[in-house]
Amino acid sequence: MTGGYPLLVADLIGVAVFAASGASAGVAKRLDLFGVAFVGFAAALGGGILRDLVIGAPPPLAFADWRYAVTAVVASIAAFWLHPALHRVRRTVLVLDAAGLGLFTVTGTLKALEAGVPPVGACLVGMLTAIGGGVTRDLLTREIPVVLQKDIYAVVALGGAVLVTVLHGLGQTGVIPFATAAVVMTAVRLIALYRRWSAPVAVP
Amino acid sequence: MTGGYPLLVADLIGVAVFAASGASAGVAKRLDLFGVAFVGFAAALGGGILRDLVIGAPPPLAFADWRYAVTAVVASIAAFWLHPALHRVRRTVLVLDAAGLGLFTVTGTLKALEAGVPPVGACLVGMLTAIGGGVTRDLLTREIPVVLQKDIYAVVALGGAVLVTVLHGLGQTGVIPFATAAVVMTAVRLIALYRRWSAPVAVP
Amino acid sequence: MTGGYPLLVADLIGVAVFAASGASAGVAKRLDLFGVAFVGFAAALGGGILRDLVIGAPPPLAFADWRYAVTAVVASIAAFWLHPALHRVRRTVLVLDAAGLGLFTVTGTLKALEAGVPPVGACLVGMLTAIGGGVTRDLLTREIPVVLQKDIYAVVALGGAVLVTVLHGLGQTGVIPFATAAVVMTAVRLIALYRRWSAPVAVP
Repeated sequence: MTGGYPLLVADLIGVAVFAASGASAGVAKRLDLFGVAFVGFAAALGGGILRDLVIGAPPPLAFADWRYAVTAVVASIAAFWLHPALHRVRRTVLVLDAAGLGLFTVTGTLKALEAGVPPVGACLVGMLTAIGGGVTRDLLTREIPVVLQKDIYAVVALGGAVLVTVLHGLGQTGVIPFATAAVVMTAVRLIALYRRWSAPVAVP
Repeated sequence: MTGGYPLLVADLIGVAVFAASGASAGVAKRLDLFGVAFVGFAAALGGGILRDLVIGAPPPLAFADWRYAVTAVVASIAAFWLHPALHRVRRTVLVLDAAGLGLFTVTGTLKALEAGVPPVGACLVGMLTAIGGGVTRDLLTREIPVVLQKDIYAVVALGGAVLVTVLHGLGQTGVIPFATAAVVMTAVRLIALYRRWSAPVAVP
Repeated sequence: MTGGYPLLVADLIGVAVFAASGASAGVAKRLDLFGVAFVGFAAALGGGILRDLVIGAPPPLAFADWRYAVTAVVASIAAFWLHPALHRVRRTVLVLDAAGLGLFTVTGTLKALEAGVPPVGACLVGMLTAIGGGVTRDLLTREIPVVLQKDIYAVVALGGAVLVTVLHGLGQTGVIPFATAAVVMTAVRLIALYRRWSAPVAVP
């Protein structure tokens, strides 16, 4: 998947949105400007760092390409100053977050497959790429990761990663099928939000 | 140590037991089915993932061999449905957990030594292989890791790792001496549980 | 930067001081002797382990050179027994901690640059080397990392990492310029402590 410039731009939009989610969590915990930027960086790039360590591709992209770190930090600082306004654009943020979920799963799964990780492992790596940042954000702000508690979020990532792995196994290499997979995941995530779908909790 | 099939089966039993411990912790925190499976996966395979990253063997076994991930997830889902019954087999779980402690320490220490990690580092890697999953489980469920607070658990792992390193240094390569080391660790752990041995806490 | 023996001694002093800070946090949380040693080890060596994983240099120094692990564990056990006395030498500990901050940033940044990490990434790696241990200590003891909440600590590390990267880019290779950078960072950190400088917190 040689998406080139459009893929980079899409990736950086995902980074910015995930950074804003981390920065907002940091503001809510009364962190200082550095702490807010740090949690934003971790939320945006933690999943990708984990991915690159697991597939054996050091240094992770977050350290190898300055545009990722700078985007995460700028978005975090913007969220620090603009956080009351973020609430007003809450719907937009949720849509962009769903798009980030789809995109990060697709790129994470493909990178794992291309690094030689077998199919089941590649699906897990793809899912971790999408949810790893949010888990890191919640650990740093002393919360049980929200993705483990409710909502259909990680399951969308896992299903999407399976779809990407199947497409890859069928020999697909173009942008269209994988972009479609990302769009499908985004749509499923938004429907799940709208319909308030959630996974079962054990009977006590 | 080319234990082959018997070693794989023993390893997967350890994975299943550690996954059940993680899943039980997830159920207790009211996580949803995905969260329970995720914490079970992390408890079962977190130590081995850390081990493989530290010794420079990507991708970690948890991603390279699908049988590990599938075993962890199936055991977690079973624990999700059967968790009231788990309490009734509590003694069996503790024995299997002690066996997992012994086994994971032996395989972790040997992998580190064979990857060229020097003796002191290999002992630490062996211990981290055994306790890393439990520490990850506790961090994800917002607990101070229980292994840091009381009980003789990690110290058994560390002592066992030293024993394995000495055996390896003496040129042992067969299954018997290392299997014996695992059995000794399991026994010491069970005696420590039964006698309620614990490490000292500082005077306030 | 081939500092040789003097650099090793300075590095181990930094390890000992960071280990004592971790051990003190463990004692305050009523951890047992093993837990105190583990948190001390993580506080002293967590930043360096993260650094070596990110730059692709396994096994991390903490596992490759026994002197690091032994120093961290001995310092932690000393803090376990002597912790009431630690409070009386609080000023000395703060000065040594500031020196550790400067030193770890310099060595972390240089190692990243020499491993081929580009400048922006190397600055981040240098900062993470200095603050990673403290963040790990706080996560293990269930605190929001103090470095994210207040004080000028990580920002000193980041500024120092930029300075080291500029010096390296200018072709400096001797000990003097980098030692000077470490001293400047130590001084800035102490002035920040004395003057109670802190980063801004968002308006609620």
